[in-house]
Amino acid sequence: MTYDFLQLNRELPAPLYQQLYHSIRRAVESGHLKAGQRLPSIRALANDLQISCTTVESAYQQLCVEGYLRAQPQRGYFVLEAQRPEPIRLTVPPGSPRRVAGPPVRYNFGSDCVDSANIDLKLWKRQIRDVLNRQEIIASYGEHQGEYALRHALSAYSYGMRGVLASPDQIVIGAGTQPLLSILCGLLGDKDTAVAMEEPGFRQAEQVFSDCGFKVIKLPGDDDGPKMEALLSSGVKLAFISPSNRIRTGMSLPISRRMELLRWASECGGILIEDDHNGELRYRARPIPALQGMGGGQSVVYIGSFSKLLLPSVRIGYMALTPELLERYRRSAKNYNQTASKIEQLALANYIRSGQMERHLRHLRKLYSSKCSRLSRALKQAFGTTVSILLQETPLSMILTVQSDMKVEMLCDLALRRGVRVGTTQNGKKILLGFAGIPSDQIEEAVQCLYAAWKDVLKKEKNKK
Amino acid sequence: MTYDFLQLNRELPAPLYQQLYHSIRRAVESGHLKAGQRLPSIRALANDLQISCTTVESAYQQLCVEGYLRAQPQRGYFVLEAQRPEPIRLTVPPGSPRRVAGPPVRYNFGSDCVDSANIDLKLWKRQIRDVLNRQEIIASYGEHQGEYALRHALSAYSYGMRGVLASPDQIVIGAGTQPLLSILCGLLGDKDTAVAMEEPGFRQAEQVFSDCGFKVIKLPGDDDGPKMEALLSSGVKLAFISPSNRIRTGMSLPISRRMELLRWASECGGILIEDDHNGELRYRARPIPALQGMGGGQSVVYIGSFSKLLLPSVRIGYMALTPELLERYRRSAKNYNQTASKIEQLALANYIRSGQMERHLRHLRKLYSSKCSRLSRALKQAFGTTVSILLQETPLSMILTVQSDMKVEMLCDLALRRGVRVGTTQNGKKILLGFAGIPSDQIEEAVQCLYAAWKDVLKKEKNKK
Repeated sequence: MTYDFLQLNRELPAPLYQQLYHSIRRAVESGHLKAGQRLPSIRALANDLQISCTTVESAYQQLCVEGYLRAQPQRGYFVLEAQRPEPIRLTVPPGSPRRVAGPPVRYNFGSDCVDSANIDLKLWKRQIRDVLNRQEIIASYGEHQGEYALRHALSAYSYGMRGVLASPDQIVIGAGTQPLLSILCGLLGDKDTAVAMEEPGFRQAEQVFSDCGFKVIKLPGDDDGPKMEALLSSGVKLAFISPSNRIRTGMSLPISRRMELLRWASECGGILIEDDHNGELRYRARPIPALQGMGGGQSVVYIGSFSKLLLPSVRIGYMALTPELLERYRRSAKNYNQTASKIEQLALANYIRSGQMERHLRHLRKLYSSKCSRLSRALKQAFGTTVSILLQETPLSMILTVQSDMKVEMLCDLALRRGVRVGTTQNGKKILLGFAGIPSDQIEEAVQCLYAAWKDVLKKEKNKK
Repeated sequence: MTYDFLQLNRELPAPLYQQLYHSIRRAVESGHLKAGQRLPSIRALANDLQISCTTVESAYQQLCVEGYLRAQPQRGYFVLEAQRPEPIRLTVPPGSPRRVAGPPVRYNFGSDCVDSANIDLKLWKRQIRDVLNRQEIIASYGEHQGEYALRHALSAYSYGMRGVLASPDQIVIGAGTQPLLSILCGLLGDKDTAVAMEEPGFRQAEQVFSDCGFKVIKLPGDDDGPKMEALLSSGVKLAFISPSNRIRTGMSLPISRRMELLRWASECGGILIEDDHNGELRYRARPIPALQGMGGGQSVVYIGSFSKLLLPSVRIGYMALTPELLERYRRSAKNYNQTASKIEQLALANYIRSGQMERHLRHLRKLYSSKCSRLSRALKQAFGTTVSILLQETPLSMILTVQSDMKVEMLCDLALRRGVRVGTTQNGKKILLGFAGIPSDQIEEAVQCLYAAWKDVLKKEKNKK
């Protein structure tokens, strides 16, 4: 154990032995020095702190007198069980226990987990191990913009999967969407820049915009996406769009609205930020290519990420800048440290280059397509018309409108008592069933349990025979 | 290979076969489809794209006519060597080759590398492997604030090493200092908040402040740190301080100035942001405890990070918030996704908890202390008074003032021609020798080479016998 926490200052008026006494006392009271622990010998500590033995001895004696330490002849000084009337407060009380015990979860429809069967864990572990064995790599700093090997792999991957037109030089890597947006805000704006996004908005993006002093303007939406009149009349030059995954409906933007958005950008010199989170994860409909490529790589900044495709614990995202923004980025590139783990970046580069990523994606598409049908069928069979279902394709979840007078919160609670964990939509008004995490063969049982939990509070079906 | 990059849109006026033709042509020209590659059969592609066989056939025929594809009877359609007069431009030209070949570097005094002998690679790899084997961990999302296990370990570690007073609840993890500062700016400020820092400033921090719309005010410094009169008269309520590692001198702030800063904060209700990058890495002087702890955990936000202590490729930093800022953070904690790799966070938690980190740090202190003496001795022996040396303790480097009429840039160049890589200070005015990367037993040879490179351009020594 080092004793660097002992604070002595010759410039203070208090004598050194008193300072030492207070330092040790605080360490005992805060639990940093634990009962039974032996302190360094007087000589050793004096030597270490470069003070006299008398100073250390005086402090130790005082602490013994006050019951913080006990001297054992021939053995040294030991910390006593702290039993102070008024223990020192750390600046924040420890707080409530972190996990409240509840009924055990048997079926998890939370949107924050993935089915371990979906995970290409063995291959991923091998990639990580391969990188770890290359000492020269982990013993050096990474590139500010992200590892070239990964940018190169993403240039080909994003073109192949999503029709994104970006050379490796145009791609910036980061630990997810937020750090990338932070950099982007720096490139885009002066203060008071306004950015438009469709209602209800995307919380994490809004947070970054507002932290960067941007004004966020919410656009009303219609069936096809954000209303164009609202965008035009807002007068903004910057719009944040999630074309593959609208928060409001979980639906994809049709090509017509995409073309309108591109026309808007080219006519007013505006910039579209295309958030394509898990955009390659379509399994019901054929994926619609990214706006960025449709616009020929101009006026669209594309942002992609991997959490649901790979492993939720891997935080890697990337953005493709427009030529103009790239030029600005280059001027200050060295001012931005890379946020993504170098080891994970290189593992991902190999994973993509070797074709494993594409194979895995094909597997996921099949898996999610089957899970989705299975869940939807099971829900219809169990609930009939008392529940209506809206599929959110890329978020891998279904929004349920339950015919009941019960509050949504209570419905969650009833479900949990039967061991089924379900979530709610962002506004808390509807039930959200994520199906990424639940194993395929448990879907029917889980829905049965859910029905058992809710059957007494459902409104009567009108048409049930 | 998936063919998702083929863009078809029934709403466009152009017939589908033409759209398909253009899509494939672009893929060939951009090199995404490579010479010799076989395209899917007409039937397979028609089926995949849900269009008629005739449409696919028409497109293929057109491409054959124009020399993009070749039909081989019974075998299918193959991509031809692209030999277009005007190949399509990706939005950014590939750019100059990334690494310019130069003379081979035999001795590396760059500040961006660490000696592989300094690295506890075997233990770190074991920690990573242990985490990778716990499937439930890597298959789930991490905590927004950072893994509790790591925050818990850091609470004890930062207290023991630096006297920081922070409970695990107060600690926020991030992928280095910048993402943490981004969050902090969001908590601290309205627009037009001003932050003071000592000249010449810290580039990466300034970038974040200015991206967040903060005004950066540079304070002149004296021997002991930023001038207090300048801080007082600036009227700001927020100061960014690097007490363990002043950019200007590489020296540590003496306790007297630290006390003055704390007094300033408590008197005006100001906040100090304490950047303690590698603060535990002292090897010449006894470490001075962090401001945060000296101030009792009030009015100081402490930021620590690990790049030079652990592995440069590991991007993990942490900040300890004040009670008031913590309360604000909690209100929006869910809006900030964690940026640090979960695997690396948990590996670090184990590395710290098992005591390996402390052992490694003790080893590093000895190593750097010896390297530092060895380098300083070798420089004095070789250069005498023609070079003066200023040690920067935590950045593990020495600033050299070379008595020569040569420009610093030229000196670097001369050194490189002898195989010695040296850097310059941030303002480009002095030579910077980082000694983290160079193996101990090469120091003397490296200095000899450096002397050989510069000996003809040194001013005459006055006192040399």
